[in-house]
Amino acid sequence: MKNIRKNLVLLFLMMNISLANEGMWEPSQLPNLAKDIRAAGFKGDLNKISNLFEYPLNAIVSLGGCSAAFISDQGLIATNYHCVEGSYLQFNSDRTGKDLFKSGFLAKTIEAEAPSAPGAKVYITQEIINVTVEVLLGTDQSKSENHRYKIIQSNKKKLIKNCEISPEFQCEVKSFYSGETYQMIKKLALKDVRLVYAPPQSIGEFGGEIDNWMYPRHTGDFALLRAYVTPENKSQEYHLDNIPYKPVSHLKISKTGIQENDFVMVAGYPGTTNRLLTYPEIESDIKTGFPSFVEFLKSNIDLMKELTKDDQKKALKYRGNISGYENYYKKISGQIDGAKNFNLLQQEKINWDNLLVFISDNSTKKEQDDLTSLIKITNEIKTENLNERYYGGSALLGAATTIYRHAFEKTKPNHERELGYQERDYDRLVNRLRSLDYRFEASVDKGIFLYRLSRYKEVEKKKRRKIFSSLLHLEEDFSATKGVINQMYRDSKELLDTDERIALLNTSLYKLNQSEDPFIVFAKNIFEENMEKEKLNKARASQLQKNKSSFIKILRRFYKSQNRDIYSDANGTLRVTFGNVMGVELNDAIYYKPFTSLEGIAQKNTGAFPFEVDLKQLNLIHKKEYGSYSVNEIGSVPVNYISNLDITNGNSGSSTLNAKGEFVGLAFDGMIETIISDYKFIPQARTIHVDSRYLLWTLEKFENDKRLINEMTIID
Amino acid sequence: MKNIRKNLVLLFLMMNISLANEGMWEPSQLPNLAKDIRAAGFKGDLNKISNLFEYPLNAIVSLGGCSAAFISDQGLIATNYHCVEGSYLQFNSDRTGKDLFKSGFLAKTIEAEAPSAPGAKVYITQEIINVTVEVLLGTDQSKSENHRYKIIQSNKKKLIKNCEISPEFQCEVKSFYSGETYQMIKKLALKDVRLVYAPPQSIGEFGGEIDNWMYPRHTGDFALLRAYVTPENKSQEYHLDNIPYKPVSHLKISKTGIQENDFVMVAGYPGTTNRLLTYPEIESDIKTGFPSFVEFLKSNIDLMKELTKDDQKKALKYRGNISGYENYYKKISGQIDGAKNFNLLQQEKINWDNLLVFISDNSTKKEQDDLTSLIKITNEIKTENLNERYYGGSALLGAATTIYRHAFEKTKPNHERELGYQERDYDRLVNRLRSLDYRFEASVDKGIFLYRLSRYKEVEKKKRRKIFSSLLHLEEDFSATKGVINQMYRDSKELLDTDERIALLNTSLYKLNQSEDPFIVFAKNIFEENMEKEKLNKARASQLQKNKSSFIKILRRFYKSQNRDIYSDANGTLRVTFGNVMGVELNDAIYYKPFTSLEGIAQKNTGAFPFEVDLKQLNLIHKKEYGSYSVNEIGSVPVNYISNLDITNGNSGSSTLNAKGEFVGLAFDGMIETIISDYKFIPQARTIHVDSRYLLWTLEKFENDKRLINEMTIID
Repeated sequence: MKNIRKNLVLLFLMMNISLANEGMWEPSQLPNLAKDIRAAGFKGDLNKISNLFEYPLNAIVSLGGCSAAFISDQGLIATNYHCVEGSYLQFNSDRTGKDLFKSGFLAKTIEAEAPSAPGAKVYITQEIINVTVEVLLGTDQSKSENHRYKIIQSNKKKLIKNCEISPEFQCEVKSFYSGETYQMIKKLALKDVRLVYAPPQSIGEFGGEIDNWMYPRHTGDFALLRAYVTPENKSQEYHLDNIPYKPVSHLKISKTGIQENDFVMVAGYPGTTNRLLTYPEIESDIKTGFPSFVEFLKSNIDLMKELTKDDQKKALKYRGNISGYENYYKKISGQIDGAKNFNLLQQEKINWDNLLVFISDNSTKKEQDDLTSLIKITNEIKTENLNERYYGGSALLGAATTIYRHAFEKTKPNHERELGYQERDYDRLVNRLRSLDYRFEASVDKGIFLYRLSRYKEVEKKKRRKIFSSLLHLEEDFSATKGVINQMYRDSKELLDTDERIALLNTSLYKLNQSEDPFIVFAKNIFEENMEKEKLNKARASQLQKNKSSFIKILRRFYKSQNRDIYSDANGTLRVTFGNVMGVELNDAIYYKPFTSLEGIAQKNTGAFPFEVDLKQLNLIHKKEYGSYSVNEIGSVPVNYISNLDITNGNSGSSTLNAKGEFVGLAFDGMIETIISDYKFIPQARTIHVDSRYLLWTLEKFENDKRLINEMTIID
Repeated sequence: MKNIRKNLVLLFLMMNISLANEGMWEPSQLPNLAKDIRAAGFKGDLNKISNLFEYPLNAIVSLGGCSAAFISDQGLIATNYHCVEGSYLQFNSDRTGKDLFKSGFLAKTIEAEAPSAPGAKVYITQEIINVTVEVLLGTDQSKSENHRYKIIQSNKKKLIKNCEISPEFQCEVKSFYSGETYQMIKKLALKDVRLVYAPPQSIGEFGGEIDNWMYPRHTGDFALLRAYVTPENKSQEYHLDNIPYKPVSHLKISKTGIQENDFVMVAGYPGTTNRLLTYPEIESDIKTGFPSFVEFLKSNIDLMKELTKDDQKKALKYRGNISGYENYYKKISGQIDGAKNFNLLQQEKINWDNLLVFISDNSTKKEQDDLTSLIKITNEIKTENLNERYYGGSALLGAATTIYRHAFEKTKPNHERELGYQERDYDRLVNRLRSLDYRFEASVDKGIFLYRLSRYKEVEKKKRRKIFSSLLHLEEDFSATKGVINQMYRDSKELLDTDERIALLNTSLYKLNQSEDPFIVFAKNIFEENMEKEKLNKARASQLQKNKSSFIKILRRFYKSQNRDIYSDANGTLRVTFGNVMGVELNDAIYYKPFTSLEGIAQKNTGAFPFEVDLKQLNLIHKKEYGSYSVNEIGSVPVNYISNLDITNGNSGSSTLNAKGEFVGLAFDGMIETIISDYKFIPQARTIHVDSRYLLWTLEKFENDKRLINEMTIID
């Protein structure tokens, strides 16, 4: 037995030998990683790059969902093209009646810089404080899990209230390590952000859905924004008097860029990973969750396409939804393939068995009980999620539910309201309700709702929501359900008008209860059932927080026993990943070289979307007008490159920095073959970056821009 | 004008800078290429490797259609698996009732070595003599092109007759440079060749049609044969008294093999290339010939599959035909794509225009008139070929036509008969007629004939064969044609019986004219028309020979003016190509590494044909049982590799030799992306080889063979 265990642990260690570049590290962890980060080739000051207030981290910002960075002392911001499509390109196309996707957008003067959709902001992290003690204060006095949950929420609200000392600041309490640690993050939110430059779609989205998650890649996935403030340096929504924001610092841009094997790092805001799950959770996701989700996505994509196929206006409104679903569909499908190709479950089972051996020797009875409870609850939740896969689906009902809940919360003092329904959240709620304007069509919404109901109906009766099912006659023939739904969409009025819909946020619960809008009535009728469900989930959340914290504490010891550093799963907070520019061989004898070139763009040109190359660009390529951006190694201007950095969704738009902390590109994608690395880091995983030299080449040669280039600090 | 010309020539020269590895050289040309061959890394004696009677060329043999080489002093021969499928594997599967494709075949003892299908031979080149003067002797006295043609034929026959001093020898007069040069090749034909080893299909044909023409590749495309002779060292058909042939020499096998950038050469019998065509010929092939041929192949593949889909016996009989058509279909489709991707026509047009400039300054009026005539005739022929694309198609009619023609020729003295119908050709005719046995089904043959007639009917009436069309009622409604065809297949008797069919070769023309077999009657009725057509073609052939010779003489001067060596298009004679092992980047940033590995086999395994890996092999791979064949560079046993050698069909089975002339593998395929190099050498073209170390590994580890390995001369 002893021997077996030893061998297993050895195997486990061997398996982790090549994981040097794993890790989405909190900046403060970097000094601990000195050995690895030096080995990767970083020669600078580790304390400096781990400090939020020093260069380069003080130039890194978030767009909320995407990452970005200041690249001039005039508030110029670099991010991905795909991060500006909605709030900047779509918004300004609608506003001006011009197809900015097709033409691209270059503000030739500062005056020409274009506003963003309401709600688009730039967030600059001001402070990160560990608040675990404060969040959990008094939880040992709790009488029930729901009570405990309330204490935690109340503690969080207090922390946030005390933090948000002026409306410029937004604070949030973030759970790290599944609630084992809490940190409060204070961010300055700049509310006037303008579009400065986006290339035409033929560059910014070259390859479209076909090349999405793929390498070799040739996408100019870059765009430039600019943050504005009042002349008094205060954050204020779009205003003609506003002036460019002067950031504390901005990234210098390296003109020579990087080459193969060079050190690179990315600082950004990765969204979600699932690397600290228990084996039963992973197994459930891969065996059941993924296939069911893929089926859900596929059926909904087909449905939305079918429902909008004969009407360009409708198609445009659902274009964002469909492409979001398609993106997920490709990703989850890639995760299914990756799990198979990299034997994820077999490997993770071995790791798990080793952990169990460790646990049996190195943990308390309570910790073991907590683990049993954790596995039980997560299993319950996953089963329920499967059953609820097709629950809902009506954006109109979603709006009614939000409005009704908001009215309910408003009956309490502001600080006691549920997070998301406080005064600080009002603008966001308004924007969400307004978005139906350009993302919603009643007939399509009804079609989606009906389809999902027909699938939800397949779930065992006692596992469905009772009142919801009863109101929609799900126990009867589906024609009855159809009758009710048709009636609801026919009779709804005020919800369908944007102004009236938003005005409902100011309506009292009393008045809302008298509304005759069928969706408001429906939201009222299912309110209690929803609150019951929420109560159950809150109790579970409290329980999970305890059990996961306990599990993490075991994991910390386990990692320590192996001399490994642990890091929290991605949670939308600032992280740093470092490594090297390098190619990859995923299939025997097919080596993806680290850099792609301008010539590859011409090679992919088919003359038709998404591989239609602009004639001007094609001409520049054929004439080899490389300017000063050509690289000997590839004999051309580099377009995209890959590195072994560890990123995920949310890292989009993250600046890539060289060993000197200079800007050398933007991370924008992963590779479909290794996208399963969200669950388990794969050494072959690669991050795809757009090269800074392609950005500069495009500005100089293709756009004939001087204004923006002159504004940047370009280092030879 | 002068300046323009200079620039054009410069451009032309620049375009040819990287063509160092172009060339399928006659061995005697090698000493002239000293500079290039040394640059590629060859360090040995150039006179030795250019000498047919020295090592290694004296170990190189032909199988007729495929190349091969002796690899032991006991007559053991290495060639490709795909070269032994028909006459060895199919034949012995039929003979023994065992599926040798599935099981593979390993003779554990010498007695177990299995016979070949009748007619399979090994040819050992004995002599190559330039006979241009002899072939053209007296042609200046000709009264007409047909007379001139006759003189040439008669000269050839005399040469052959004088050469074939014993039945062991086969001589042929081969046209080089489109008839500008003739060479007589004398070959020793060994008639008892036995199957010694073929791996199971899961190795020998791994990847099947899907991986055909593709790299990265993992095919164990190797097989071993053995030549036998009488105890008196005479060639004799299969006989129990025969003993293994002792070749003059055999290739030593390098165990360490080659690595990236190493010098390699291939000596073999490439079939056909078209690199010395005029531009109008190339243009016609690419613009018209290829698309029409591809359509023809596709429609015939679909038809044969449809006609045999419900009957396994029929399907088996047409399996060879279908796969041959599919192979061509993939190849021609690849040529169409390649011509487009490599801008072949634009490039060749530039080259042609340069040549025209050269011609206007450096040729006689007669040469210019010859070129005009050449372009006119080749255009006529190509147009006619298009019109005749669907002419024929009945194997039964083909047999009848052959029998009838044979009877006609027999009315003349043997040496006056048309080549192909002389006494020396009798065995081949018998085998061809016998092959209907396993490659023919009357119902399928009729279906194919009817389909082709329906397409031939679409050709303009005056461009169709008159008597043929009239006999088959092609001017009437197609039901009339169907009626005639149905009747013919219903009434045919003797032709359908193998013995009777073969016996017809011994029937006199007089008796044949009385036959009532409708196909014999039909063959008789179209005989005159065919002969007229043949006469026209012979006149054209004579004219072409003159015009092409004239064109080649210009080309020789043109090449010389550019310091380039010229080589004859492939014509099934012994050629040598040399170069280096190297990867290739065909698409931006996708680099195909030069070697594939055992692990790639496991990676491609789907458990289903053609990617089903034998469990024993899979197990060896998983356990990394590499034996002594592992290579540091790839950390595994190499399976296939690529080089920049210049090969084409017919080179299949060619031994690949290292700088010491040792055996390091077998060439077996080209890459579909560059297959257009049959028309114009493409620097990115690569030859795919199976590595000798994979052959040895398979024998030792997978087959547990010692007998054969011990017989080889393996050099560490």
